[in-house]
Amino acid sequence: MTFNLRIVLVEPLYQGNVGSVARAMKNFGFSDLVLVNPCKLENEARALASHAWDVLSSARLVTNIEQAIEGADVVVATTGITGLKTDEHIRMPPYTPHELKEKFNGTNGTIAILFGREDNGFTNDELKLSDMIVSIPTSEIYPIMNLSHATTIMLYEMSQIEAGEQQLADGFDLKLLNEHIGELLDDIQYPEHKKEKTHLMFKRIFGRAELMPREVQTLRGFFGKIQQLLK
Amino acid sequence: MTFNLRIVLVEPLYQGNVGSVARAMKNFGFSDLVLVNPCKLENEARALASHAWDVLSSARLVTNIEQAIEGADVVVATTGITGLKTDEHIRMPPYTPHELKEKFNGTNGTIAILFGREDNGFTNDELKLSDMIVSIPTSEIYPIMNLSHATTIMLYEMSQIEAGEQQLADGFDLKLLNEHIGELLDDIQYPEHKKEKTHLMFKRIFGRAELMPREVQTLRGFFGKIQQLLK
Repeated sequence: MTFNLRIVLVEPLYQGNVGSVARAMKNFGFSDLVLVNPCKLENEARALASHAWDVLSSARLVTNIEQAIEGADVVVATTGITGLKTDEHIRMPPYTPHELKEKFNGTNGTIAILFGREDNGFTNDELKLSDMIVSIPTSEIYPIMNLSHATTIMLYEMSQIEAGEQQLADGFDLKLLNEHIGELLDDIQYPEHKKEKTHLMFKRIFGRAELMPREVQTLRGFFGKIQQLLK
Repeated sequence: MTFNLRIVLVEPLYQGNVGSVARAMKNFGFSDLVLVNPCKLENEARALASHAWDVLSSARLVTNIEQAIEGADVVVATTGITGLKTDEHIRMPPYTPHELKEKFNGTNGTIAILFGREDNGFTNDELKLSDMIVSIPTSEIYPIMNLSHATTIMLYEMSQIEAGEQQLADGFDLKLLNEHIGELLDDIQYPEHKKEKTHLMFKRIFGRAELMPREVQTLRGFFGKIQQLLK
């Protein structure tokens, strides 16, 4: 297992941006591109991909984010500060690209970095699918970056990661752990109006902690034991 | 005096790139844009500048690099590794964008960052006008970045500089110091075929050293004294 970076563009509107992202990916040595319901990709996309036509043409096309993040161990959403329509359980301030790089130095596994729509970013429900939030520090006067520029900065930082021994928890196990916690909140009749927030808080904490597979197993065992005893 | 970053595009070929650069500059809070013999700037440049129309429209248009770097204290040329057609007196490896940021942290003054043509980069003579060379670490397979992507990375790093007390030597004084050394090489009848290389070496060393104004004055005094004694 090695370090793998996946770039996910969610419903990109402009084919030029998609082509430019493919080019930037190849510039930094990455090729795992997933497009969720993209715009039409024709001549302009190909022109801007330039010599990264292979990255563009091998991009995986899917119809929702769940499919796009399949197999990823950690899911990171990129958003401008202004894109955070809510601060519910989002670590404030969000990670900077450089902090993210530092966090993943010495690890291996698949990290999916999500980029939202050029006009509307992510919906709140989409943001909740991510384990971590990253935000590029920009000027307050004009913080809205071009999609391929934002991607380029993330690629630039991530390309400096040196893969290491520490294996990121397998995404699937992490998902099961999160489901466990959801069930447990039901089991203990946690106040209904707080349930979702608390569940999301756990998800974020585990995301930030970069759990190792053994830790995920241990946590699942721990919460499973509680569930058994409660029944 | 505060920290000021100037972006210089040398003979850009595509107006879309110029517009995109203006946008990225505003995203990171910069506005000092100089264009050396640019292509026509029409609707596409304006569209891609988006809300940075003010940066684009107030760009200074000049006909050569000498005019573009006027008033700058330090001149940095950005080039891909492949863009270095010669390694004459170029520090190998060149600075990374992050190293450059670290180098200028805590300083103030005007730094001009030059970007070459989309197709041919810089000529060797143009490279010699710079005090320092910076290169973005890219994949060897496809190192040629889009112009606005390369600019975005430099802006991203430079925007993290915290201005400080240490004033960069005034560009004009540094220029006089360099002229001094050229004269001195003549005076001591330095071997003709090595003269240019040695002169450039001094220029690069002083560039890397980020001389303070007092140091420039002292060096000028020192070399001036030698010149006087030789005559």
